[in-house]
Amino acid sequence: MTDSPVLALAKDLISRQSVTPLDAGCQDVMIERLKALGFEIEMMVFEDTTNFWARRGSEAPLFAFAGHTDVVPAGPLAQWHTPPFEPTVIDGHLHGRGAADMKGSLACMVVAVERFIAENPDHKGSIAFLITSDEEGPFINGTTRVVDTLMARDEKIDMCIVGEPSSTRYVGDVVKNGRRGSITGDLTVNGTQGHVAYPHLANNPVHQALPALAELAATTWDEGNEYFPPTSFQIPNLHAGTGASNVIPGEFNVQFNFRFSTELSDEEIKRRVHSTLDAHGLEYDLKWTLSGHPFLTDTGALRDAVVKAVSEVNHQQPQLLTTGGTSDGRFIARMGAQVVELGPVNATIHKVNECVNIADLEKLTDMYQKTLENLLAQ
Amino acid sequence: MTDSPVLALAKDLISRQSVTPLDAGCQDVMIERLKALGFEIEMMVFEDTTNFWARRGSEAPLFAFAGHTDVVPAGPLAQWHTPPFEPTVIDGHLHGRGAADMKGSLACMVVAVERFIAENPDHKGSIAFLITSDEEGPFINGTTRVVDTLMARDEKIDMCIVGEPSSTRYVGDVVKNGRRGSITGDLTVNGTQGHVAYPHLANNPVHQALPALAELAATTWDEGNEYFPPTSFQIPNLHAGTGASNVIPGEFNVQFNFRFSTELSDEEIKRRVHSTLDAHGLEYDLKWTLSGHPFLTDTGALRDAVVKAVSEVNHQQPQLLTTGGTSDGRFIARMGAQVVELGPVNATIHKVNECVNIADLEKLTDMYQKTLENLLAQ
Repeated sequence: MTDSPVLALAKDLISRQSVTPLDAGCQDVMIERLKALGFEIEMMVFEDTTNFWARRGSEAPLFAFAGHTDVVPAGPLAQWHTPPFEPTVIDGHLHGRGAADMKGSLACMVVAVERFIAENPDHKGSIAFLITSDEEGPFINGTTRVVDTLMARDEKIDMCIVGEPSSTRYVGDVVKNGRRGSITGDLTVNGTQGHVAYPHLANNPVHQALPALAELAATTWDEGNEYFPPTSFQIPNLHAGTGASNVIPGEFNVQFNFRFSTELSDEEIKRRVHSTLDAHGLEYDLKWTLSGHPFLTDTGALRDAVVKAVSEVNHQQPQLLTTGGTSDGRFIARMGAQVVELGPVNATIHKVNECVNIADLEKLTDMYQKTLENLLAQ
Repeated sequence: MTDSPVLALAKDLISRQSVTPLDAGCQDVMIERLKALGFEIEMMVFEDTTNFWARRGSEAPLFAFAGHTDVVPAGPLAQWHTPPFEPTVIDGHLHGRGAADMKGSLACMVVAVERFIAENPDHKGSIAFLITSDEEGPFINGTTRVVDTLMARDEKIDMCIVGEPSSTRYVGDVVKNGRRGSITGDLTVNGTQGHVAYPHLANNPVHQALPALAELAATTWDEGNEYFPPTSFQIPNLHAGTGASNVIPGEFNVQFNFRFSTELSDEEIKRRVHSTLDAHGLEYDLKWTLSGHPFLTDTGALRDAVVKAVSEVNHQQPQLLTTGGTSDGRFIARMGAQVVELGPVNATIHKVNECVNIADLEKLTDMYQKTLENLLAQ
């Protein structure tokens, strides 16, 4: 039996060992297909990262598919049932690193656009692809720099589907219509080192900081809202001490991370944290790193078109959620674009034996194609 | 000018590089002098540690000098003004590693005993030396094993002077007549690892433990008493996290140390800590290591003899304190012995350019000799 166009393209992409930030020729495969459809191709290579921007048409609205060709490392090879970069079909599932995150989605996007343009050669607006090889890495030279380049020349994406694996049990059960913001604080509480036998000559920064940290961990930061769960505070890392049991440490390092809703701003979070630390009289340094503002696409043509498309394929409405980690959607939302994420089931991503249901890939292609029809068909 | 007997012996000992647990021939030098006085010598070598037990007489009471020939490493040589193992006199001070901790004391003990026996060849009771090369190390194969050996054969020290540098400004200003106990707890709080974006699927052990730790750090454990400062609780080390800012840690390791007075027992401390951890509903493992029970010599012949001897030399009473770290005195106190610590000024111990005032060594010899006279002269 011959592979379907989507399955064949997904296999081709998976067979290329594009461990982040490598692209390993994946983008060339996509570009060749898009050129044949009349897309203008613009390579945007920044440092170690390969990106391309492809556009067909010059009119508004500008609809874009966004995604990445890089994958996370395979992990322990002995635990894979099939070689991670040899795409293999087992029981209706395509196995291989990147099958679900997100080479399957890339294949669906390309085939959906091919089919849509075949039926709608004179579609309204414009169609674009924003593809990077840096989504699984430090996301410095990928989507964010392409967005910077586009914004600098006033080229604005109006609507964007990111192909991240948004689904939980079957494809399209969940569409992500926003993401929480993420901000990290690296706190150093300063004390005075000394010998545990002479505590009056030292000042243990751990003891100083414990009540403040307990208060931060117990704080209700907001109640969330219709689309966002309550803002969460977590301490992923903390450390103090020389290792010796008789030395009172001189400093205490604590890292905390907020995943925050649209009810809060990063500035409000900073203000409240500093207020708590100051109220406890701590001497400290605090360095903030903002990974992304929250974004939300709660209304608009894109949301409606995607919900309609998914419902037609599944005969069931998708759930609109904003849970989960950050994604490159946050960078595209910066442009003022409507952004949603729609992709395969995420159960196996970043794990050994990553796989995707082949029937889901066909459905996802239909969902993408119907979305294009809902938005850009004449 | 010829060196005095005490200075000559102190120099001889310092010139031997007995970095813990090495003895480097120091004990042989002492043994030769003690043999000449009629001491019975018993070598007690355990693993890497050289110890000896020397006794003169078979009657009670048994008075012992205790001390160690090992020293801490020299540290950065470039910061020493004189080579650490070349004893050098500068401005009335003898410089070299171990000058104050405690080869100076060892020389004083030997010379004091020589003088006392010369004047009191038929003294009452017995005199002993308990000398180890493991006081600066893990104190596993040193004093504690010698004490075990003596106790197993019912040989009991009644009174003991440990030559640790007890003094702060001038020799004999402080006599230590006890030490706090020390107990360490290694706590592992168990949670459930997860992604910070999905806090409801994880259970952060840091967040769980913070209120309990804050409570332990704020607890008044006792008020101390006439001889002991209040029991202190310190967290010298704690750690959680994988280093990644997006992973909720699965466990939280906290080490705490108590320096405790005779108002508390180790069992009472354990009971109260477990009670606090349990009250906060923590899931945890807790491993205890008892380094030493507190001991106190608040009355008795030894205390009186030492206070009288010091007062005669200094024309001023010593202060009796129990502050500071642990010492081998805790092992000897286990026998039911009266134990005090009397030695030189401790300002330079464990530091570069360790030194001792030569006049103080002569005074310390007098104090030791007068103590022997007060206790054992016919």
